[in-house]
Amino acid sequence: MATNQEHTEYVLRIGDNALILGQRLSEWCGHAPVLEEDMALANMALDLIGQARMLLTRAGALEGEGRDEDRLAFLRTEGHYRNLTLCELPNHDFARTKVRNYLFSTFQVLLLSRLVGSTDAELAAIAGKSLKEARYHQQHSGDWVIRLGDGTEESHRRTQEALDYLWPYTAEFFAPAPGEDAIAAAGIGPAWHELEQSWEAQVHPLMVEATLTVPPRTPFKSYGKFGRHSEHMGHLLATMQYMQRTYPDTQW
Amino acid sequence: MATNQEHTEYVLRIGDNALILGQRLSEWCGHAPVLEEDMALANMALDLIGQARMLLTRAGALEGEGRDEDRLAFLRTEGHYRNLTLCELPNHDFARTKVRNYLFSTFQVLLLSRLVGSTDAELAAIAGKSLKEARYHQQHSGDWVIRLGDGTEESHRRTQEALDYLWPYTAEFFAPAPGEDAIAAAGIGPAWHELEQSWEAQVHPLMVEATLTVPPRTPFKSYGKFGRHSEHMGHLLATMQYMQRTYPDTQW
Repeated sequence: MATNQEHTEYVLRIGDNALILGQRLSEWCGHAPVLEEDMALANMALDLIGQARMLLTRAGALEGEGRDEDRLAFLRTEGHYRNLTLCELPNHDFARTKVRNYLFSTFQVLLLSRLVGSTDAELAAIAGKSLKEARYHQQHSGDWVIRLGDGTEESHRRTQEALDYLWPYTAEFFAPAPGEDAIAAAGIGPAWHELEQSWEAQVHPLMVEATLTVPPRTPFKSYGKFGRHSEHMGHLLATMQYMQRTYPDTQW
Repeated sequence: MATNQEHTEYVLRIGDNALILGQRLSEWCGHAPVLEEDMALANMALDLIGQARMLLTRAGALEGEGRDEDRLAFLRTEGHYRNLTLCELPNHDFARTKVRNYLFSTFQVLLLSRLVGSTDAELAAIAGKSLKEARYHQQHSGDWVIRLGDGTEESHRRTQEALDYLWPYTAEFFAPAPGEDAIAAAGIGPAWHELEQSWEAQVHPLMVEATLTVPPRTPFKSYGKFGRHSEHMGHLLATMQYMQRTYPDTQW
């Protein structure tokens, strides 16, 4: 039997991924290389922030301490965020942004596909609504990874660098989290390691098509989903929380 | 007769320059190209933050609304900071950092040299204490500008780029500010345009020695000292204010 806290944390992990990657993608607004991509990245950021709103609202309700989406999004401190480290890393360049989006959205499609059958009816409904968006993100970013990887000499080099940089952080997707077995037993959602094989089976062929080399696994581990974040997280939060911290309880 | 508000703003302009440039320089800590420079930049950051403490304390006393150095440093919003735009620009690279330090500290030495004779005895005392530091900053950064400008092909190119980028922002040093004439008449301190000739007379020969070309003046104007800041200021404040905003009234 999953405890309420395990259930809350499970939903927070999914919600924080969407929140933090949404925040990162929003940094592209006005900076993308072509207008169409500027719109696409801003829209994907908004999709993710929309998902985060629903998921954090659900997590707040499960927690039962009266925290709404805004309090959870803006008024926690670093150690209380449960996102994957991958989501908080700087955008760096267009190639890294696209490779990350592909690696993450492929994972997210697999996760949401399972969550639509969740015994948590609200989570199932959120997953159903989010899945279409995640599929589009996966399709769009996958197309770009192929186009950039199998593109010019420079785009290939940069995309390979992006994959080399990001790959070690994907191990965290599948690292066991406390309470996951109970969550899985309760039918709330899969333990994330269950998704690893399907994820690898999708990612590798696409990288081959993109003429990119997937690096070997190393002992490197990241721990964002356990609240131990990279040096980039504090700066991201400083920016993201500025309005709420400066004007507490401000409303539109 | 200078009003209390004019006097406060005058001191704030000097204090905020030190605060914001000190914050920028502190970003170098642990990142400088050699250990000695890492120490030097961190020490200069601390010098400036020390000057900011004294100046903001004085400004707070003049204002008479009970705001101390911490409230002024950490709890204002962007439009209330009075620093020169030059001070808030990103460090970018070592060359730009050194050229900025030289352009600013040369100005600051001239200003502080006048302020030691201020009719505001506290301001005069702060200036006396700060002048030695500013002279060291000027000497140190001037040596580096020559070394980099008259160095390798790459260091020359980067230093020239730094000068080209920063130069337009130096016009703001000497732009008339409201109340300055009254401040000057009261003997509190010079109107900053009074320092322009001496500043130019020092900067140009050093740039010649550094084999750098000073760009011509253009109509470009920046307005940081009037509270209208560049896009970089909000991000700097988000980082600088994070602790106080997140843990209001926190103490060591």
